[in-house]
This record gives sequence, C-alpha cells and structure tokens, in this order.
Amino acid sequence: MSTLKPSLPPCPAILSDRFNTLRYDPDQDVVILLNRAKYPLQMEYVTCRSVEEVARAVEDMIVQGGPPLAYAAGLALALAEPSEPIYRAAAERLLATRPTADDLHHIIPTALDLALQALTAGDDPKQAILAYVNGEIERGNQVSRACGQHAADLLDDGDRVLTHCIAGAALCYMLWIAKHQGKTIHLIPTETRPYLQGARLTAQSAVEMGIDVTLITDGMPAHLMSQGMVDKFICAADRVTLDGHITNKVGTFQIALAAQYHGIPFYVLGYDGPDPQTESADGIEIEWRDGREVLYLAGQRTAVEGIEALYPAFDITPPHLISGIVTDLGVFPAHLVRQYWKK
Amino acid sequence: MSTLKPSLPPCPAILSDRFNTLRYDPDQDVVILLNRAKYPLQMEYVTCRSVEEVARAVEDMIVQGGPPLAYAAGLALALAEPSEPIYRAAAERLLATRPTADDLHHIIPTALDLALQALTAGDDPKQAILAYVNGEIERGNQVSRACGQHAADLLDDGDRVLTHCIAGAALCYMLWIAKHQGKTIHLIPTETRPYLQGARLTAQSAVEMGIDVTLITDGMPAHLMSQGMVDKFICAADRVTLDGHITNKVGTFQIALAAQYHGIPFYVLGYDGPDPQTESADGIEIEWRDGREVLYLAGQRTAVEGIEALYPAFDITPPHLISGIVTDLGVFPAHLVRQYWKK
Repeated sequence: MSTLKPSLPPCPAILSDRFNTLRYDPDQDVVILLNRAKYPLQMEYVTCRSVEEVARAVEDMIVQGGPPLAYAAGLALALAEPSEPIYRAAAERLLATRPTADDLHHIIPTALDLALQALTAGDDPKQAILAYVNGEIERGNQVSRACGQHAADLLDDGDRVLTHCIAGAALCYMLWIAKHQGKTIHLIPTETRPYLQGARLTAQSAVEMGIDVTLITDGMPAHLMSQGMVDKFICAADRVTLDGHITNKVGTFQIALAAQYHGIPFYVLGYDGPDPQTESADGIEIEWRDGREVLYLAGQRTAVEGIEALYPAFDITPPHLISGIVTDLGVFPAHLVRQYWKK
Repeated sequence: MSTLKPSLPPCPAILSDRFNTLRYDPDQDVVILLNRAKYPLQMEYVTCRSVEEVARAVEDMIVQGGPPLAYAAGLALALAEPSEPIYRAAAERLLATRPTADDLHHIIPTALDLALQALTAGDDPKQAILAYVNGEIERGNQVSRACGQHAADLLDDGDRVLTHCIAGAALCYMLWIAKHQGKTIHLIPTETRPYLQGARLTAQSAVEMGIDVTLITDGMPAHLMSQGMVDKFICAADRVTLDGHITNKVGTFQIALAAQYHGIPFYVLGYDGPDPQTESADGIEIEWRDGREVLYLAGQRTAVEGIEALYPAFDITPPHLISGIVTDLGVFPAHLVRQYWKK
C-alpha cells in the first residue's frame, strides 16, 4: 500500500472490512453473517449451522455483493462433514445459489480442491478450507483498499458522485481516502429498488464516515445530470469481462447511457480485475429473481393484485459507455481491461 | 369520433372518465375527489368544502395528473364566496399549488375571468365557473378518447408497451380501443417511485380492462429493452412545448435515452397538443417536492437516518428522443408539434 498515506485512520464504515460482516466461529462451528437485508435499519447477525443454511442466506440476500457472498459460501464448505461426496454435494449446492457474480465460481472450486487434497493427504480439510477462505477475505480487504485508493485519486474536491446499489468496501475506501486527501465529496446514491441497498447500505456507510449523502430514486439520475448536479458516476461490478463489459445491479446500464449522453465520466470499481474465464457479455448469466419481490417493499404489498412482475437482478453495460475500470492495480480503459492479467 | 367503431363498449377503467374521479356536488356545495394517493389499494373519496381544502389536496397529490388536478382546482373556484377580491385570492392560491403542468394555468385564469364577468353582469358566477369547468372536463374526456384512438392505431398485435407513471385517460382508451381492434397488448409499467403510480394506478386501470400487466422497477427499462422485451415506450406529458420538448414524471428522460439507444419508438400521449404559451424547455418550471418523500414509502421509513434527499417531480425530454406526439388531432413529429395549432 505504498500509495497510502501512513496516517490514514482505520475506515469507520462497517462494510469496509469484510471480517466485520461475515466470519467462521470455531467455538460454535458456525458461520455468522451480518443480515444485509435488514442492516442498518436493524443490526442483526444470522448464525448458520450448516451448508444449507448458508446457501439459503445467500439466496435470500442476507449476504449480498459478489465477494461477500462468495466468502460466506466458502466458509460454509467448512461446515460440511469431511468426506468427498459430501464436499462435492455441498460445493454444488453453494454454486447453485446465485449465478451472476464470478467470485463464487472461483472460491468454491478452489476451496473444494483444497479440501479434497487435504483428505487425500490425511490433513484436516476444515482447516484447509478456512485457511484459504480467510486468506481470500484478507486479500479482498487489501484489494478493496488499493482499488479505493486508485478511485480516490480520480476524484476532485467538491465532486458530487452518483452511485447505484452498493459498491462495497472499495467505495468505502475511496470516500475515506478522498476525505483524508482533503477532498469534500458529496455522495448521491440511488435508493435501488427493490432491496433499497442504496437507501440503506450505501447511505449508511457514508454516514459512518461523515460523508454527506443526498438520496434519489432510481428514476432521477438523468435529470440530475441534465441540471449539472452530478460530476461522476461510480459503481461496482459483479463481474467484469475480458473485453470490458460489466454486469452490475439492474439500473446501472441506463444510468451509464445517461452519463454518456451528458459527458459525465463513468468509473467502475473493478476490484481484482476481469474474470479470466469470461471473454464477453454472452458468458454472463443474468439472474432472474422471483418477480414477486417487486410487488412488495419490506414485506408490505406495494402493487395492486392481478398482475405479474419481473426481477432481473443485474444488467450489462458495454465498454463504450465506461470511462475506466478501477482495480487494485490501477485504472484500465474498459476495452483494454484484459491487460490487468499482464501486470 | 368518426374513427371509433360504433360498437366500442364503455371503457371499464375508472380513470378513463374524469367524472368518475372528481366532481362538484351541488347538494352539499363541495368538491369530491377520488384519493389517488391511496387508490386502488384503498377506495376513498375526499370531500373538500373550501378552496384551501382543494388546494391542499392538489399539493398532497390526492388528485394528480395535469388535467385532473386542473379540473379539481377549477371546480374549487366555485366554492369561493362570490366577490372579486376573494375570487382573485382563490385563483392565486390555486395557481400556486403545482407549477409544472400547463392545464392549471389555462383553466384557472379562464374560470376567474368568467366569474368576474358574471359578477359584473349580475349573473351567477358559481354557475359560470361550473358550466365552464364541467365543459372542460367533458372536452377533456373527448380529447382523451380521440388521443387514445390515434395511439391505438400505432400499436401492433402482440406489442409489449412500456409506460412510466400514469398516462391517464388516453392510455386507458388506447388500451381499450386496441383490445377492441383485436390486438393483444401487454403493458409493462414502471412502479414509479416514490408514489408508485405505476404499481397502483396504471396497473389497476389495465387490470380493470383485462389487459395483462408485468410490473418492473424504475431501474429495469434499459435491461428489458436490451433483451428484446419491449416493443414501444409510451407515456404522457404534463406539458408539451411548441418546439417539441415534453415534461413528464421524473424518470421519463432516461427511459427515452434507453429507447433511442435500442431503436425502440417512444410515443408521447400529448392530449390536446402543446402549450401555446410555452415555446421551449426553459419555459417549464420543474417542481421540486419535499425530498423527505423519497425517504419514506407509504408512511414507512425506507432510508437510514442522517441523510438528505431530493425529489424533482418531473424531467424534460428533448424532441430528438421522441418518435411522435399523439394528440386528439393525430400524431405529430415532435419537432413539428406546433403545427397542432394550425389544424
């Protein structure tokens, strides 16, 4: 972290450190997850005692975001009985939870391999899994901080930064580092229906860091841009492809179109770069969640009866709408993001 | 209505006939309004006994939509004591309720003039106001039906029509007439935060007519377009300018950008044409409503504490993003919509 000022105080945003929100507890042999479906309106930790309980927590968005849900699923594998068929079934169950983000599809196969190797070698497979996944969480924290540093360097004092959904630890570090660079940044999150990640998680992280927040609905970005009220659009990606497409929470694509129309830079927090196994957009499976989630808000029916609804959880933004992909290794033009793997 | 098939049954959508939702009751000397902030989840009529009560109902969106709120305000003038200073003060109060739609700014000045003329001539000013405003409501119904007819003629069997917010009586007639032309139309309303007009009012009108509805959030239009799931985007306008800009519920602009990107036609239901007093976009005042409305949904806090919010109620879409403006006199290219007044 040579580019970080040594004086940077610890980031006070709870979501900036993944160990704050998910961990394996060896005393109880459980995985403990901050319930992101309720945080911060309620502070609730969910204790998962089995692979199935973690899998359901991922499906129910108790843990969400590409890396966090992958870490939770990875830790879950340590809860399985140590036998090859059970590990294989557990890995299959965990991989089936959510299809779009790539992190899950790296961490589970690797954790499975390490567990099977340990079994063969007569070592403790649970410890092999935990050592690997906890190492990945620590590595993810470092990646988030480095990505946030490079993103902070793109910001100017006074910037009004629009964001969508939750851009996770890198956004936290971006805002925290920019603040300690002496820049005043104003964050404009979309509320991000139907789960309101922007109104809850993103807004709360900024509040925890003392960053001013102005919330808008998902329909307002283009209008604010037309009024000169947005300087940059910055969000994360659940997957970056080698040719520079990104998939992120549904709604990102139309904000990117509006940003390009208005000449506003759109930077993607790409963490540890493109998925080396996904060449282009056709390699991304967009998750369709239960449409009924759109008919309700926080358990309250918000739509009339007698209708259907759709809930594509993500959309895809092409590279020509992206001004740069920010990673732990620096900023790449979207079309050239595969060069990340040459660094 | 020579273009209408004589066999068209009455449209069953409550919102298709403005007399269903607002009227002056001579027995009680009150204005009765369907509460659109609650309909259809609750069916509640609000009785207004004074100009001030109607003005607040308009501000609180108990009645909403450019023409309906203008009719309600017009009827309210009939509740004022018959004297020139009181009529003038009442007109001023009613004009101050909401700035963006043009209908209010035509109906109130004309109703005031007629009332003052009646006072001078020794006629009954209340009857002068009511005769004029009720005539306007009836004329508005005819305009809606003719506009809906022209819009229906643009639809193809099987069309999946995206809409935003509530496009009012013309959308109802468009769907009803298309259905009786033998076309199967599928309606995709955005839910339209923060008031959920799409999830409530638009969806309900379609249900009342037996039209299939698939609800989406405000962030999903571009993704559905990219998946080939939208054939046309059709919404209304709170004001059309002589040079072809339209203002409509915030969110319209970014959907229009997405439609153009994907080559999807965007038709605007322009009712009785552009406002002859508004040359271009700089003549439109965009209403900024209380930002706190974005922090809540149906009275429930949905955002964290410690943040601000913004609520621009409308946005402006330029003519080059609009494929046609549909009026009671036919369809105009947006750039040529001023020709409406030459017909």
